[in-house]
Amino acid sequence: MGWKRKDLLSLQDLETAEIQDVLDTADSMREIATRDIKKVPTLRGKTVVNLFYEASTRTRTSFEIAGKWLSADVVNFSASSSSAEKGESLLDTAKNIEAMSPDVVVVRHKASGAPALLARHLRCAVVNAGDGAHEHPTQGLLDLLTIRQKKGHLEGLSVAIVGDIAHSRVARSDIHGMRKMGMTVTVAGPPTLIPPACQELGVKVSHRLEEAIAHADVIMMLRLQHERMESGLIPSLREYSRIWGLSLDKLKHCRPDVLLMHPGPVNRGVELSPEVADSQYSVILDQVSNGVAVRMAVLYLLAGSQAA
Amino acid sequence: MGWKRKDLLSLQDLETAEIQDVLDTADSMREIATRDIKKVPTLRGKTVVNLFYEASTRTRTSFEIAGKWLSADVVNFSASSSSAEKGESLLDTAKNIEAMSPDVVVVRHKASGAPALLARHLRCAVVNAGDGAHEHPTQGLLDLLTIRQKKGHLEGLSVAIVGDIAHSRVARSDIHGMRKMGMTVTVAGPPTLIPPACQELGVKVSHRLEEAIAHADVIMMLRLQHERMESGLIPSLREYSRIWGLSLDKLKHCRPDVLLMHPGPVNRGVELSPEVADSQYSVILDQVSNGVAVRMAVLYLLAGSQAA
Amino acid sequence: MGWKRKDLLSLQDLETAEIQDVLDTADSMREIATRDIKKVPTLRGKTVVNLFYEASTRTRTSFEIAGKWLSADVVNFSASSSSAEKGESLLDTAKNIEAMSPDVVVVRHKASGAPALLARHLRCAVVNAGDGAHEHPTQGLLDLLTIRQKKGHLEGLSVAIVGDIAHSRVARSDIHGMRKMGMTVTVAGPPTLIPPACQELGVKVSHRLEEAIAHADVIMMLRLQHERMESGLIPSLREYSRIWGLSLDKLKHCRPDVLLMHPGPVNRGVELSPEVADSQYSVILDQVSNGVAVRMAVLYLLAGSQAA
Repeated sequence: MGWKRKDLLSLQDLETAEIQDVLDTADSMREIATRDIKKVPTLRGKTVVNLFYEASTRTRTSFEIAGKWLSADVVNFSASSSSAEKGESLLDTAKNIEAMSPDVVVVRHKASGAPALLARHLRCAVVNAGDGAHEHPTQGLLDLLTIRQKKGHLEGLSVAIVGDIAHSRVARSDIHGMRKMGMTVTVAGPPTLIPPACQELGVKVSHRLEEAIAHADVIMMLRLQHERMESGLIPSLREYSRIWGLSLDKLKHCRPDVLLMHPGPVNRGVELSPEVADSQYSVILDQVSNGVAVRMAVLYLLAGSQAA
Repeated sequence: MGWKRKDLLSLQDLETAEIQDVLDTADSMREIATRDIKKVPTLRGKTVVNLFYEASTRTRTSFEIAGKWLSADVVNFSASSSSAEKGESLLDTAKNIEAMSPDVVVVRHKASGAPALLARHLRCAVVNAGDGAHEHPTQGLLDLLTIRQKKGHLEGLSVAIVGDIAHSRVARSDIHGMRKMGMTVTVAGPPTLIPPACQELGVKVSHRLEEAIAHADVIMMLRLQHERMESGLIPSLREYSRIWGLSLDKLKHCRPDVLLMHPGPVNRGVELSPEVADSQYSVILDQVSNGVAVRMAVLYLLAGSQAA
Repeated sequence: MGWKRKDLLSLQDLETAEIQDVLDTADSMREIATRDIKKVPTLRGKTVVNLFYEASTRTRTSFEIAGKWLSADVVNFSASSSSAEKGESLLDTAKNIEAMSPDVVVVRHKASGAPALLARHLRCAVVNAGDGAHEHPTQGLLDLLTIRQKKGHLEGLSVAIVGDIAHSRVARSDIHGMRKMGMTVTVAGPPTLIPPACQELGVKVSHRLEEAIAHADVIMMLRLQHERMESGLIPSLREYSRIWGLSLDKLKHCRPDVLLMHPGPVNRGVELSPEVADSQYSVILDQVSNGVAVRMAVLYLLAGSQAA
């Protein structure tokens, strides 16, 4: 009820009631995955185009399954094998796709703001599936959905986000979403990977992992990109892992009901020890399942709710 | 009514009445794109295989959407990741695909005549989606559909096709299609890019852009492949653009109701200035929309009309 | 009736009655390919994920068409463009996919045993679509189906499998399947390409092509991988072809009703002369058609028969 937006570009844009709306819709979508026949006719005759300028089989597959379970036609348009190589601009490619009358274009692009640019110029709905170091709103939403599912509520919970905050679109969407839902957020990581303006987002900054996670209800460990080492932002993977990686030993000092989350894919032995990834604290695979439910909700709200 | 062919290989093959038949069918398909539920059951239970030996997300996507809106099963078989790498011949690959009982094979290949070879050996319908410098018949048909939609008729109209005529399968399909529909065609471009035998196709040749477009009802600007410069056929992109590129300035001397067309993807600043590409003369995006309608018509005529 | 397995990993695992069950089911699926509307609702609302770590358009397409004709949602997850590049383990990738609630994961991997590993850890059904030099069970089944279709029975028939036995997962699945169905198997090839423990599989070994094929009801010619020459296992393609390649001349001494089979893609002029590949003995394209029927049967037995 009441969803009015044409696009989903960021969680920074959304109001609390809108986030609530997506989460409630996703809750009802989640049930579909448990059915014997995982198919509803909601988006029959609607067309979803996955326009991916960065390889991401995982997120693309999640959107593809979400669309198909809703009976939409899903078309994958991988920009590496496309006109991008022939020098066509992003906007020209997108306008060409729009001319084929899709209802939703799901776009991933290495440039922050690319989905917003498309949203301004296209009449169809645009979903940001990750843009540069800006936002990855469906990831932020699936993280909220997972926490709400496990904890029963969001308001008042305390979250530690650990790792490469500076380059993480996941961290940015999480921070915006969690703050809007009344949660307390602490970010922690090497000083080179914490953006200076971080406090303006309403988060606390910690430079010790143990301190950041001590009282957290949720620990979100971010993936360390190997490029960070090459560019000199961390001294070595081994040192990073020793100081900022999460081991069972470090987890012992946390709340016994702490949730361990990770946006995937996990670098086992870097940000998480293998035992932690497979421990009873981990809800990493719940995040993946909830990803399909959140994307069904988003596709439904953007393309199907008028018809309802 | 009365479509009898097994395949669509070229516009040179087709008779005027057959082209008319495709265009009329496409006109009725176009309406589907405007519906809330873009889906008709026409090709339910039919299988369309996109067999693409050259990367072309745009044309492949257009066929994929066309097939899906008609309820066909569409399978993308990209030959770069396939047995072609293992040294299998085109014909063996195609016979293997045919053994999986598709109803239509849509083929793009760098070798002129490859679709015709397959058509002779396969029992299923074959659609040429572009073969070398030979033909790209669905592009020619969507160009005709766009002109007829905008002008109300085709006969007697005058078209200027500008650029690399020699290497363009689009130009070849356009010329055959337009001549059959009673249109006058002038081709223009640097002498190195105009095939000597051009006049045998029934077209006028001009070596000045301004002359070619002065009285044209339609200007079709072709994409300049960057390889042409490397192989010495044009002196430089900048010089090509100055002489053969279309600017708003040059357009001022044209008919006020001239249609500007381009098969895409556009090299902004080479064959078209950005202002021209976005001007009120441009019907480039209508061409893309009509591409889906034409491909629905072709798939329907080849795979679905017997059942009707 | 009575199919009880969660997975299809190998023919070595299966009992004779189970193989019979798949073949009987495939026989009834084969009819669907001949219908005007090739679509049954059997797997509506089921999701099949093709998880391919090796490029194989042919086998992937066969599974994709099989799934679509059964009305399943089919999602292609090509591991080359996926998290595998980001260092994620096979098991983590598979568990992520499972978290999206597929009913069947079809996996191809260069490591022998990879599908078995996944089968142990995933709740959903796993189908081995080829793992290293271990097995390719749906290929073995389609070979059996083709022989049974052409000969009317399997028991007592004599088969010669010729070529690179040592590196062939097809040979291994064929041998297990044929032995279980009461067939006699002779393998033949250069000593460097015959595994020493071959006799333990219950097959005869021959080191002369002419001898191996003289009384065979079926000749299965294996594809020679070019890498074998580079690694010194054969002296030259020309010499291999002269001694181990099948020409019309050599075929003259065979049974007049011999069936010539090949798992594809064929190296024309290496293991088969072009005339042999196109001769009346060849049932190579029947194998491809039967591949779709066998995969429909397997998907049905693993994902659909409970509902029936």
